Amino acid sequence: MLTYSFEDMGNESLYEYLYKCIRRDILNGRIGAGEKLPSKRSFAKNLGVSTITVENAYAQLQAEGYLYSVPRSGYYAAEIKQYLLTPSDAGGEEERKELPDQREALPGEYLADLINSRVNPKQFPFTIWARLLREVLAQKREALMTKAPGAGVWELRQAIADYLLEYQGMQVQAGQIIIGAGTEYLYSLIIQLLGQNKVYALEDPGYVKAAEIYRSYGVRTAYIPMDESGICIDALRTNQADIVHISPSHHYPTGITTSIGRRYELLAWANEKKERYILEDDYDCEFRLSGRPIPSLQSIDRQGKVIYMNTFTKSLTPTIRISYMVLPEKLMQRFEEKLGFYACTVSNFEQYTLAEFIARGYFEKHINRMRNYYRGKRDELLREIEENLPADKVRISDSDAGLHFLMEVRTEMTDEELIRRADGQRIRIACLSQYYQKAPGELRKVVVNYSGLESGQMHGTVTGLLKAWF
Amino acid sequence: MLTYSFEDMGNESLYEYLYKCIRRDILNGRIGAGEKLPSKRSFAKNLGVSTITVENAYAQLQAEGYLYSVPRSGYYAAEIKQYLLTPSDAGGEEERKELPDQREALPGEYLADLINSRVNPKQFPFTIWARLLREVLAQKREALMTKAPGAGVWELRQAIADYLLEYQGMQVQAGQIIIGAGTEYLYSLIIQLLGQNKVYALEDPGYVKAAEIYRSYGVRTAYIPMDESGICIDALRTNQADIVHISPSHHYPTGITTSIGRRYELLAWANEKKERYILEDDYDCEFRLSGRPIPSLQSIDRQGKVIYMNTFTKSLTPTIRISYMVLPEKLMQRFEEKLGFYACTVSNFEQYTLAEFIARGYFEKHINRMRNYYRGKRDELLREIEENLPADKVRISDSDAGLHFLMEVRTEMTDEELIRRADGQRIRIACLSQYYQKAPGELRKVVVNYSGLESGQMHGTVTGLLKAWF
Repeated sequence: MLTYSFEDMGNESLYEYLYKCIRRDILNGRIGAGEKLPSKRSFAKNLGVSTITVENAYAQLQAEGYLYSVPRSGYYAAEIKQYLLTPSDAGGEEERKELPDQREALPGEYLADLINSRVNPKQFPFTIWARLLREVLAQKREALMTKAPGAGVWELRQAIADYLLEYQGMQVQAGQIIIGAGTEYLYSLIIQLLGQNKVYALEDPGYVKAAEIYRSYGVRTAYIPMDESGICIDALRTNQADIVHISPSHHYPTGITTSIGRRYELLAWANEKKERYILEDDYDCEFRLSGRPIPSLQSIDRQGKVIYMNTFTKSLTPTIRISYMVLPEKLMQRFEEKLGFYACTVSNFEQYTLAEFIARGYFEKHINRMRNYYRGKRDELLREIEENLPADKVRISDSDAGLHFLMEVRTEMTDEELIRRADGQRIRIACLSQYYQKAPGELRKVVVNYSGLESGQMHGTVTGLLKAWF
Repeated sequence: MLTYSFEDMGNESLYEYLYKCIRRDILNGRIGAGEKLPSKRSFAKNLGVSTITVENAYAQLQAEGYLYSVPRSGYYAAEIKQYLLTPSDAGGEEERKELPDQREALPGEYLADLINSRVNPKQFPFTIWARLLREVLAQKREALMTKAPGAGVWELRQAIADYLLEYQGMQVQAGQIIIGAGTEYLYSLIIQLLGQNKVYALEDPGYVKAAEIYRSYGVRTAYIPMDESGICIDALRTNQADIVHISPSHHYPTGITTSIGRRYELLAWANEKKERYILEDDYDCEFRLSGRPIPSLQSIDRQGKVIYMNTFTKSLTPTIRISYMVLPEKLMQRFEEKLGFYACTVSNFEQYTLAEFIARGYFEKHINRMRNYYRGKRDELLREIEENLPADKVRISDSDAGLHFLMEVRTEMTDEELIRRADGQRIRIACLSQYYQKAPGELRKVVVNYSGLESGQMHGTVTGLLKAWF
């Protein structure tokens, strides 16, 4: 068990000293993120101090975010650092801003966390899922024990293909679909499939994690600016990009929808060279809240240039790791040849359960329910903003799709000050400028991820921002 | 036109049966590579089945890579080659032999398949697993919906640490353990953690898939010869290896156990440079059938140089994708810093179920049962060999560990002829020489993977080999 000597304790109180020892060990990694701490009673006994001392130390550490507690289980070390990108290879003239704090906020650490979009676990259709899983266990014993093809269980691939046809108008063969344990894993397959020697172009501003993964595999990346129609084609050319990784239906964090004109330009760009491809990351297409659905880039691609990718971690729960991609037929052949030796990374148990969940229409129902749920949240938050914040100083944009919108604040404050002041009200925010590789100066636009807000939090959050800024 | 009779179809669905017929004919060459298949409509009419049936069969065959489709033309038989490594960069003088056929044999295709070691699905403790899964569903709803740390759910990591201590004498903190969806995925984490610019040394002969994965990520590999004590240290030096990937407790396919002297030499080699590491792939340590258990390299490593890796796919079922690795503390810190942004690739549902399975002692019971089961298989096969094959022409070695042994055949035949003649008796074998990068000439040693053999198959297999060779 973790132990400390109280010999060189000096003048501090026992609890303060213990608090500092634990904090030091969390910061230096001796106590790893997610590691469980000893129970108060046994730790106190071991250290020869009272339970109250340990309790106080734990409480302080929890309050400051070093520990978090899980009901009926105990205390765990929190993840403390941010995941920093090394400075852009695009060679920014200005120093880039600090990245948004990606770590999950601890329960109780903030009044509201507007950085991470979060799936409310209470919304997961647990009863149905559990029932289907039990059915699968009872009825599919043999299939569950039969090794699936590397691309995944056929039933799930067929269910996804049927779903894509019915609800997104995408004509896709089940045989083009590859199931994997999360989009992060699928990116690694893409890199192996298309090659390490290619230049992967990313949107600037853009999704931080995609950049981290490409870097982690040591492949060359290029950051491409966006205009109001989408990613800039000219910059793709000057950067000699081979693969472009985009979210045309709803860009994060700007919310830009790639125009139909730009979509055809992108396809034309890809068609200029044999080994150019577009990776369409359609991470939140299910949550378009109003307006007409936008056909995917994949569905207007006639030359087999688009790799379509989507995930169930956002639409169901991040604790089930299932994502998929749709490969053009030629790439599927290449996948079988080059990467066919890989086993599928998702267990049969969950593949069959998800297949049933989709095929019996539960997924579509769930998505409809979630769309209403998120629409309700958005409307409530917008109403609170309208009622409480000065109308001439706040402008909302891109609130029709996905689970976030932008809030422009008309002020003299810098982005850093906006963040710091919100933090003072225990509201965690990120600014659009933080998502850029090349620092764009002060944009004074806040990225508001509202999916994790409970109804009761809305009013307090908005009045907190009022106090912070106005 | 191609035609099939549906008379001896048995219980299968029409589409399954058709799919199997076509697959069989592609594999045996009756339908040649590049050959066009009948159009769905005309084939369906000819067979007297619905077009949908043919469509489903074609789709499945296409998904699995047996067919490919050409738009506006139709379906064609694919070339079914093995996943071949490109010739060694070690520059073999002799041409290397054809790799063992890695693909799974089809049901009924062979009398016996001695190439693939297989987990018998009937041996999986399905009832207990299903019960634990149901319990987890009923009792851990909140935990199931809480995002796990990137390294995995704490309970599972603790259960593995406890198991390693109790049954393998390994002192490991739960915080050093990383859970991942299969060892193949863990290799990719290793490459990202240790670097793409390193030289990864592999055993020659050795495990074909590990080599495929390193190559697929484009990292440099070096093939290192083995002697009777294990991998050759001198060759590690001359090849400027940084990382060495080995299975010291039971090498595949030779069965060599790395001697204790060689183990310390390996650790000394790793200690010479800061960024040298040993990857200990302990894929079948649970199945040592007699003799004393061998302490892992990890357990005698005092300098944090060994990464230990093991999997539940071999000990439980390959359809649940859970493996783990134990990192030295310093590497664990580096993992948190460099790769902490990755989500864990295994679903919470299965992590909690496996944690219960191990913590309640079911895993240990299962392993004991499987050890007896495999020992029974081995003994039966050895008895059949002793009774039926000429004693002066056959010599068995390395039959104490894991799920395979070597059978040396004293003959004038080449390895190729041994394989071909066994194939004539519908027995699928591979020779040791096929696992070498540098062709070693005719070794006349057959690698006998017996784990997939049913009791009733033993006699027929051995008398088949008698007919084939003597």
